Amino acid sequence: MKVIQTIAEMRKLRQRLLEPVGFVPTMGYLHEGHLTLVRKAKEKNASAVVSIFVNPTQFGPQEDFEKYPRDTERDLAMLKTAKTDAVFMPSAEEMYPANSVTWVDVKKITEHLEGAARPGHFRGVATVVAKLFNIVQPDRAYFGQKDAQQVLVVKRMVADLNMNIEVIAVPTVREPDGLAMSSRNIYLNPEQRKAATVLYRALNHVLELWSEGERNPARLRRHMLDVLRSEPLAVVEYVSVADPETLEEMETAKPGGLVSMAVRVGKTRLIDNMVLELKPRLLPD
Amino acid sequence: MKVIQTIAEMRKLRQRLLEPVGFVPTMGYLHEGHLTLVRKAKEKNASAVVSIFVNPTQFGPQEDFEKYPRDTERDLAMLKTAKTDAVFMPSAEEMYPANSVTWVDVKKITEHLEGAARPGHFRGVATVVAKLFNIVQPDRAYFGQKDAQQVLVVKRMVADLNMNIEVIAVPTVREPDGLAMSSRNIYLNPEQRKAATVLYRALNHVLELWSEGERNPARLRRHMLDVLRSEPLAVVEYVSVADPETLEEMETAKPGGLVSMAVRVGKTRLIDNMVLELKPRLLPD
Repeated sequence: MKVIQTIAEMRKLRQRLLEPVGFVPTMGYLHEGHLTLVRKAKEKNASAVVSIFVNPTQFGPQEDFEKYPRDTERDLAMLKTAKTDAVFMPSAEEMYPANSVTWVDVKKITEHLEGAARPGHFRGVATVVAKLFNIVQPDRAYFGQKDAQQVLVVKRMVADLNMNIEVIAVPTVREPDGLAMSSRNIYLNPEQRKAATVLYRALNHVLELWSEGERNPARLRRHMLDVLRSEPLAVVEYVSVADPETLEEMETAKPGGLVSMAVRVGKTRLIDNMVLELKPRLLPD
Repeated sequence: MKVIQTIAEMRKLRQRLLEPVGFVPTMGYLHEGHLTLVRKAKEKNASAVVSIFVNPTQFGPQEDFEKYPRDTERDLAMLKTAKTDAVFMPSAEEMYPANSVTWVDVKKITEHLEGAARPGHFRGVATVVAKLFNIVQPDRAYFGQKDAQQVLVVKRMVADLNMNIEVIAVPTVREPDGLAMSSRNIYLNPEQRKAATVLYRALNHVLELWSEGERNPARLRRHMLDVLRSEPLAVVEYVSVADPETLEEMETAKPGGLVSMAVRVGKTRLIDNMVLELKPRLLPD
């Protein structure tokens, strides 16, 4: 496994990688969700490249950039077991020289949900992903469905800017009790960790209502809220039943609809989601 | 010479082109300036691709998008004589499907000169050039120095987004009387056409002063204005002596400085520029 720190070296290595190349951009502090992405990349492509870069431009000024968890040694060991071919881990200076002034801005779908809650977040995401795509030049790129809006934003950018890359969303990997895996789960103390399962329980409750034929988004949101509010440690930021194309709230819940939420447990901001399916089935756990 | 209208066909053809590929993006209605770009592309690369696309997103609502001159038949004949390998001429719908919402935004250097005079112009330019680069995937791209700020914006975008493309600025090609070649010159009636040489005369006057040792930008701008105002048909929009990196007005005129102007002659907006050189020499004519 090659570990690379500069753009120039990454470009050089890229020419020697067997094609097609699958790519998994990460912010490190890896968990089983990331490894699932790497395994998918490896399964479908001759080479798998992973990037580890805690991207400063996607954090708001009040957010957790400084304290975002980092453990490179552990990350590299995990990536080695997943048979990663190359790990690209540039410095912030390498990715953002002082004179860089260019942004990739995906409009409209970034006005809702995470985009509304975190101004500038998706501009940072789109910009760094465009840069990484141009450096790594993958054939396919893999993203976790946990960050559902991020997947849509990246897919939109790739289509709109005519990037010749297939973007693949991989189902959310969950802890045994249903909590969606996230590097930020490490912030939770034991009590908060227990409370955090409320997101999964809320999704399951919506799934149950949907399976019973409930199609009123206001009622689905209301029930989601009721479950979330039953947990004293949870502070709800938003609940949503959104059109998967526009991310606007749906008038009638339909298959394909994105049920999502953001919830604070202590200082930790958690998100989760599921897609309404034609034939409802239990969430995996 | 292959003439291609869809992105899918262009991608397919790209795989068969000999590399390296040189690319000349144009808005058509070609003149000797464009053909010089094509010849440069052909000289240095195994294949030359030219795009013809009047990009709606770089025109302001009050600008000349609708009446921008078009003559595809003539363009294709000219490109054939220049030994162009492929011409990509997509429709507006092909380039901008109704649901596209992504912009490439180069900040700071677009706040001055043309960017200040034409809000949104460079956002349109950067976005369409990023798209064309991703479709054509050239090794080198050629732009005319007449649009000096455009060259800087594209170079900045390529560097900031880590596109693996060399951007080459080619000296402005001029009519025998010094007028910089431009598709928009066709708008000028004979009287205006004669008046339009005032831009070239103003540049030459600045060059003379610069050669004599004048280093005060305010005085250089003043003299440029004096020449321009001596022409009754010319309405000056701006004159500038700018830092070539930031495009801010310089405190002291230095080699590398960009002397530029925008002038209206009738309804036609003309721009021209020159770079201050260590060893001043007459402008080519």
